[in-house]
Amino acid sequence: MISKEARLDLDRLSRLGMVEAIWGEHKTFEQIAEILKSFSEAGQLAFVTRVSVDKAEKLMQIFEQAEYHSKAKCLTLGRPFEVHPTEGKVVILSGGTSDLAVASEAELSLRLHGIKTEILLDIGVAGLHRLLNNLDKLTSAEVVIACAGMEGALPTVLGGLIPQPVIGVPVSVGYGVSAGGITALKGMLASCSPGLTVVNIDNGYGAAMAALRIIRSRSNK
Amino acid sequence: MISKEARLDLDRLSRLGMVEAIWGEHKTFEQIAEILKSFSEAGQLAFVTRVSVDKAEKLMQIFEQAEYHSKAKCLTLGRPFEVHPTEGKVVILSGGTSDLAVASEAELSLRLHGIKTEILLDIGVAGLHRLLNNLDKLTSAEVVIACAGMEGALPTVLGGLIPQPVIGVPVSVGYGVSAGGITALKGMLASCSPGLTVVNIDNGYGAAMAALRIIRSRSNK
Amino acid sequence: MISKEARLDLDRLSRLGMVEAIWGEHKTFEQIAEILKSFSEAGQLAFVTRVSVDKAEKLMQIFEQAEYHSKAKCLTLGRPFEVHPTEGKVVILSGGTSDLAVASEAELSLRLHGIKTEILLDIGVAGLHRLLNNLDKLTSAEVVIACAGMEGALPTVLGGLIPQPVIGVPVSVGYGVSAGGITALKGMLASCSPGLTVVNIDNGYGAAMAALRIIRSRSNK
Amino acid sequence: MISKEARLDLDRLSRLGMVEAIWGEHKTFEQIAEILKSFSEAGQLAFVTRVSVDKAEKLMQIFEQAEYHSKAKCLTLGRPFEVHPTEGKVVILSGGTSDLAVASEAELSLRLHGIKTEILLDIGVAGLHRLLNNLDKLTSAEVVIACAGMEGALPTVLGGLIPQPVIGVPVSVGYGVSAGGITALKGMLASCSPGLTVVNIDNGYGAAMAALRIIRSRSNK
Amino acid sequence: MISKEARLDLDRLSRLGMVEAIWGEHKTFEQIAEILKSFSEAGQLAFVTRVSVDKAEKLMQIFEQAEYHSKAKCLTLGRPFEVHPTEGKVVILSGGTSDLAVASEAELSLRLHGIKTEILLDIGVAGLHRLLNNLDKLTSAEVVIACAGMEGALPTVLGGLIPQPVIGVPVSVGYGVSAGGITALKGMLASCSPGLTVVNIDNGYGAAMAALRIIRSRSNK
Amino acid sequence: MISKEARLDLDRLSRLGMVEAIWGEHKTFEQIAEILKSFSEAGQLAFVTRVSVDKAEKLMQIFEQAEYHSKAKCLTLGRPFEVHPTEGKVVILSGGTSDLAVASEAELSLRLHGIKTEILLDIGVAGLHRLLNNLDKLTSAEVVIACAGMEGALPTVLGGLIPQPVIGVPVSVGYGVSAGGITALKGMLASCSPGLTVVNIDNGYGAAMAALRIIRSRSNK
Amino acid sequence: MISKEARLDLDRLSRLGMVEAIWGEHKTFEQIAEILKSFSEAGQLAFVTRVSVDKAEKLMQIFEQAEYHSKAKCLTLGRPFEVHPTEGKVVILSGGTSDLAVASEAELSLRLHGIKTEILLDIGVAGLHRLLNNLDKLTSAEVVIACAGMEGALPTVLGGLIPQPVIGVPVSVGYGVSAGGITALKGMLASCSPGLTVVNIDNGYGAAMAALRIIRSRSNK
Amino acid sequence: MISKEARLDLDRLSRLGMVEAIWGEHKTFEQIAEILKSFSEAGQLAFVTRVSVDKAEKLMQIFEQAEYHSKAKCLTLGRPFEVHPTEGKVVILSGGTSDLAVASEAELSLRLHGIKTEILLDIGVAGLHRLLNNLDKLTSAEVVIACAGMEGALPTVLGGLIPQPVIGVPVSVGYGVSAGGITALKGMLASCSPGLTVVNIDNGYGAAMAALRIIRSRSNK
Repeated sequence: MISKEARLDLDRLSRLGMVEAIWGEHKTFEQIAEILKSFSEAGQLAFVTRVSVDKAEKLMQIFEQAEYHSKAKCLTLGRPFEVHPTEGKVVILSGGTSDLAVASEAELSLRLHGIKTEILLDIGVAGLHRLLNNLDKLTSAEVVIACAGMEGALPTVLGGLIPQPVIGVPVSVGYGVSAGGITALKGMLASCSPGLTVVNIDNGYGAAMAALRIIRSRSNK
Repeated sequence: MISKEARLDLDRLSRLGMVEAIWGEHKTFEQIAEILKSFSEAGQLAFVTRVSVDKAEKLMQIFEQAEYHSKAKCLTLGRPFEVHPTEGKVVILSGGTSDLAVASEAELSLRLHGIKTEILLDIGVAGLHRLLNNLDKLTSAEVVIACAGMEGALPTVLGGLIPQPVIGVPVSVGYGVSAGGITALKGMLASCSPGLTVVNIDNGYGAAMAALRIIRSRSNK
Repeated sequence: MISKEARLDLDRLSRLGMVEAIWGEHKTFEQIAEILKSFSEAGQLAFVTRVSVDKAEKLMQIFEQAEYHSKAKCLTLGRPFEVHPTEGKVVILSGGTSDLAVASEAELSLRLHGIKTEILLDIGVAGLHRLLNNLDKLTSAEVVIACAGMEGALPTVLGGLIPQPVIGVPVSVGYGVSAGGITALKGMLASCSPGLTVVNIDNGYGAAMAALRIIRSRSNK
Repeated sequence: MISKEARLDLDRLSRLGMVEAIWGEHKTFEQIAEILKSFSEAGQLAFVTRVSVDKAEKLMQIFEQAEYHSKAKCLTLGRPFEVHPTEGKVVILSGGTSDLAVASEAELSLRLHGIKTEILLDIGVAGLHRLLNNLDKLTSAEVVIACAGMEGALPTVLGGLIPQPVIGVPVSVGYGVSAGGITALKGMLASCSPGLTVVNIDNGYGAAMAALRIIRSRSNK
Repeated sequence: MISKEARLDLDRLSRLGMVEAIWGEHKTFEQIAEILKSFSEAGQLAFVTRVSVDKAEKLMQIFEQAEYHSKAKCLTLGRPFEVHPTEGKVVILSGGTSDLAVASEAELSLRLHGIKTEILLDIGVAGLHRLLNNLDKLTSAEVVIACAGMEGALPTVLGGLIPQPVIGVPVSVGYGVSAGGITALKGMLASCSPGLTVVNIDNGYGAAMAALRIIRSRSNK
Repeated sequence: MISKEARLDLDRLSRLGMVEAIWGEHKTFEQIAEILKSFSEAGQLAFVTRVSVDKAEKLMQIFEQAEYHSKAKCLTLGRPFEVHPTEGKVVILSGGTSDLAVASEAELSLRLHGIKTEILLDIGVAGLHRLLNNLDKLTSAEVVIACAGMEGALPTVLGGLIPQPVIGVPVSVGYGVSAGGITALKGMLASCSPGLTVVNIDNGYGAAMAALRIIRSRSNK
Repeated sequence: MISKEARLDLDRLSRLGMVEAIWGEHKTFEQIAEILKSFSEAGQLAFVTRVSVDKAEKLMQIFEQAEYHSKAKCLTLGRPFEVHPTEGKVVILSGGTSDLAVASEAELSLRLHGIKTEILLDIGVAGLHRLLNNLDKLTSAEVVIACAGMEGALPTVLGGLIPQPVIGVPVSVGYGVSAGGITALKGMLASCSPGLTVVNIDNGYGAAMAALRIIRSRSNK
Repeated sequence: MISKEARLDLDRLSRLGMVEAIWGEHKTFEQIAEILKSFSEAGQLAFVTRVSVDKAEKLMQIFEQAEYHSKAKCLTLGRPFEVHPTEGKVVILSGGTSDLAVASEAELSLRLHGIKTEILLDIGVAGLHRLLNNLDKLTSAEVVIACAGMEGALPTVLGGLIPQPVIGVPVSVGYGVSAGGITALKGMLASCSPGLTVVNIDNGYGAAMAALRIIRSRSNK
């Protein structure tokens, strides 16, 4: 007998300082609704990623306070955390319109935790001037998250230009050898730029939590 | 015509605050010697990774000041940077004796840049008590680097326990499906722990530079 | 000329003590109906896995006694075997809501054969306390089946804690490098925990039959 | 500073009932010697797998009581456990002369723990009669370990013939598509025989520990 | 400018003695219709594989003489060749109901060329008796085509039992490591049975043409 | 805040002499419409590849001047460049009807830039006569683009026959081991013909731009 | 206890009409010697493939009648079978000097069984004239074995030209994407030529046994 | 019977204008010597790639006129072609000292055919200034060959800066995910720069022949 389908890790917030993201893609509408209810009852902010418009609309009919973030394809229920005015900013780079969902998931994940963010779109290595024109913004960031599909060279070029922490997010958009994002992932891991780190393909939430760890670790000391 | 075989990136230090590591594995003794000479003439600290004992001995006959770090399989020429007393410490975990070279490369890379380090050996997920017994040391670190071969689960378990930045280094030791380290790498990327980041297989130097970016970014602000 | 489309292995029960599971996913409604008819005529319990709700509803209109197990996505026709009161229990762990179908398929497969089972949900390595809090239940089991997607570290951690047979079932839920379950599979095979065994991705039925072999082998001697 | 290179899991024996196997392949002679010393001082049986003849000879000069098992390529130091007279036997099948090292590692691992074993050699699916002629021995076993390289079909055929637990060990001997053992591994995982479980390629020790878990679990109840 | 979309290889019949199969899966209804028209005008038998029921119905409205073979998912237009009474028979084995489409494509391909065939269904290695019970039929064949998914062990076992040419056809039915048929393919290539040959996954037509080459080569001499 | 979703590389034309192709497959109708508007306002020719009929029809309702090229599945808005009468011709080979979309994308990409083109269809290596019959046309080309799926041998055979630049385009049409085009890609890269170059799978636009670089580089000098 | 290390399949000859090839690569000198002794005592022809010159020389000192075939890297002991004067000939094509060992292994395997053979060297698709100049010899063969590395296109081109059985043998010679022979293997399987069959990489013996099955099957009827 | 081991393609020069490169890596000293003799007797320039120093020294003792090019690891026998004074220059970029052998093979291959070349070393994307400082040289080239290992981003960045033909050569130097060069290869194929073409890993000769095709095609018209 299963007494209850989902025992959530409601202690994660106090242990790690992170809201647990519920991965919505493979869950049914009913499963997500049950999870939202648990969070709501526990008085915690609920954060569901990869929610289709269809599921979101049905969920918002039940949970009137829920908010759907269409670019990021995420749904939230509850109040985000206050912005920490003295903490640094995370700049998020995106190589193209197709990477927008991943960059937006990263941005939303950080804003929910009260971190300041800025997205820079259409920054790619095949048109270097756009990257070089934004160096000021990049060097003023505390952490840079760089999303890129295809060959994934953006974090490599960036990591050779600035000394800040750079987190690469490979994006699954592409075709042929770049389909699925594995080539971008391996390109980032194989990078000749020192000190670049990488998260799973399309994992905007993961990159945001890595940036959060860096920024909070700083403010804790 | 090639005027000179290796034009080194001697500006990297001022641009990124990082010593350029020379990857010694596929270079001949003569190529490394020429590079050491360039660094020496430029008055910069030279740092060569993956140097076999044989090559190291021949190089030390030419460069009397060179030092060979046998556990890390690295050779240095020139003075390391002073330790910054107010900067945080990086703790480096290693799953087994076989991961020692990678963990030692990370440690040496950090110490050369004046960062305090501590290595904890034989911390593995098949014997959780050793991990749990060291939680104090882990939570006192500013950054944790976790090296692991085989299934690579160590950073995942660790990332669920502490809020600090955790950098996973997959190690190529293993056999069958874990040979070459790809399984450890993918296991870390697929981790259910939020905010874990990863570098290339066996890339102790890369993990160290990522930790350096985090720590220096903090002290710069 | 084909005289009959499916010659079932109706002797499997006497030879191996196992009900043959019919894999329903790639079979048409008509093919499954024909197979159910054969089993029914032979007076044997029929067990079809991976049956969509649509197919199940059509089949239950024809076979009124058929029962659909929606969590496990399985359909049965005929009476399960009696529970053996003196035989041990199999505990089935599941890392998350998304693994529920696989865990339920394992549980149903065992219950059909008269084996006692218990499912423990949302036991994952990123929140170790939930695992450690259930150690009593785990050490009282005769066999443990651990289902896990993503990096698949659950059976590894478990195998280091308890001496019982542990069977890992990699689950295909995930994205990027964990999509399809190969990373979880390889992580389990590469495990540093001694004596862990593994079945094919999503193969809840297979893990159950392996547990059955272990338990029956015991009761036969 | 590293106070000691290897902190062994000397509690494994009491926790799991298993001797910790030291994987000797990637360790230096000096590293293995240090580990043997630790075990010896702790009064525990030491078991090192994948030890080359050269390393073994040097080690036996230092540790006079050490014993080298050349077929299994393993080295032991200390007394094996007594045979439990009432416990069942494990039969180990090997497809060919080339699989002998893996089968022997499994056998030795079991004998060290006091388990009775029998090896049957040159049992392959391309000559079925040899398998069918040994059915008596196979059905008298409590657990069967089947080692196979190339296409790895042996455990599949076996699992369809007998009701006992069958553990498949893919072997890395082969060439072309079977080089490295991945094809044998996947063939065993994809098997149409129900309830077959699998361990990592060439992992004779792992298969033995899985058999030990099964047999001991039985005798403990 | 493209004068005509498809220039068919209408000489193939005279050069190789084989009807060119048109692969229908990725072609639109309009493209197939145009090709059928070309064959029809040239007075040749047209043979289209992998045609969905939908496309087939639309095509049969235009080409009244066209015939749809639903098990094989093929459409033909024109008269098959006469059976050669003195030529040998090809026996086609299929491991399960799911392999039926591939086995039927092979059978139809041969019958169109006037070759005698017999299909034996549900012959698998997990129930050896069904294979052994049909040895008479198998040894009376001139060529045997063995279709198998999952681990693909059927042709290996067969090749060790009979001296005839055995052509293995891996089938894409399966899940986890057997999804897509690559494991079955590699298992057949890695086979320990001597003289087994293999064609592409699901390539029933290709296996049939290989059998045709063998049989016709015989009757030509 | 994101001020504008897509900052296009409108300077590419002056820098590289190439119209930027907008990859339409993963973009929504709204995203493409916004991009078309930007190009239109900048007075530049807009070129969108991989546009489904559905999206194209909706876009043409908004942009009346837009033109849909159904074989190439591309949409253009604005006037193509004039043909350069003295520049050479690019001949594009296609192995089968299924490769037509890729070959047509290459042809359209070149014609938009004012380059003369000719497509030769159904030229394959399994019917060599069709290739040999077209040698005159092939040797009169300045560059040859050869599209091929399955085993991808066409560019290899061609490269051994003519001295011109040959650009291979692997095509994703196929099944089993050729599904997705990786086998064709690797076959072209592994080619024993000297001086063959390759682009990504299905990348007709990329092959066209490579041909444009060759031809324009010539006319610039 | 192991009573005897290798129980050979000495009945294979009567059952299948094939001499069992002993794969010598991974066997020690001592293991091969023991096997040769068994065959010798049984009065059967022994055939060992992939024997290095060093091992061969040591074996010939013990077995004076043994013969080493250096091009094929095989060692035989005992008398080959008589040539059947009325049976057909097998023509073996090799793409380059580097494929010679594989082609020679195939040739020797056939000659040992009394089959007539002819080798044609340096027949490649990048120089089609050499293939076309030998069409007479090829069409007079009963079976053609085509060995090819790199892109492996030779059997594809051949299969489009002649109606005989064509067996492709991928060869592991190459570099980059063709290293190890997988690209040649997949190219042959993906071939657009109908009725081509394939064996494992470098498996000259396997191709020979497939040809033997074809020829003997013919002469038996 | 084999009348002669190697029938060289001595007509390649007249047909394609290219010297046939003999791949020396897997050939024995004796095989290379025989080939050199054939070329010498035919009065043609012989060009052997991937020749180790050891083999080269033995060959130069026999062929006194042979010349060994140690950086490129190639051996030539006979006179190179005259430089065409009006033809353009090929610039060859190399990312690091480790890529030197591949870049040198490309350079030598071109110089042998009378093409002007220039090598630029240590041009990498992690230090963009070195690339940007050489833009003048790059835009004056007729063709640029860019060799790069690791993530292989160099040709991508380059292709976005200049309009000339750019040929990417992935290099096998690297470790972890970049070992063997596949990541660099896929990164180049997936490039977001339009019109980049790619050759096999380490194939300096192939890139040179592609450049030759481009330049000669131009001068022929």
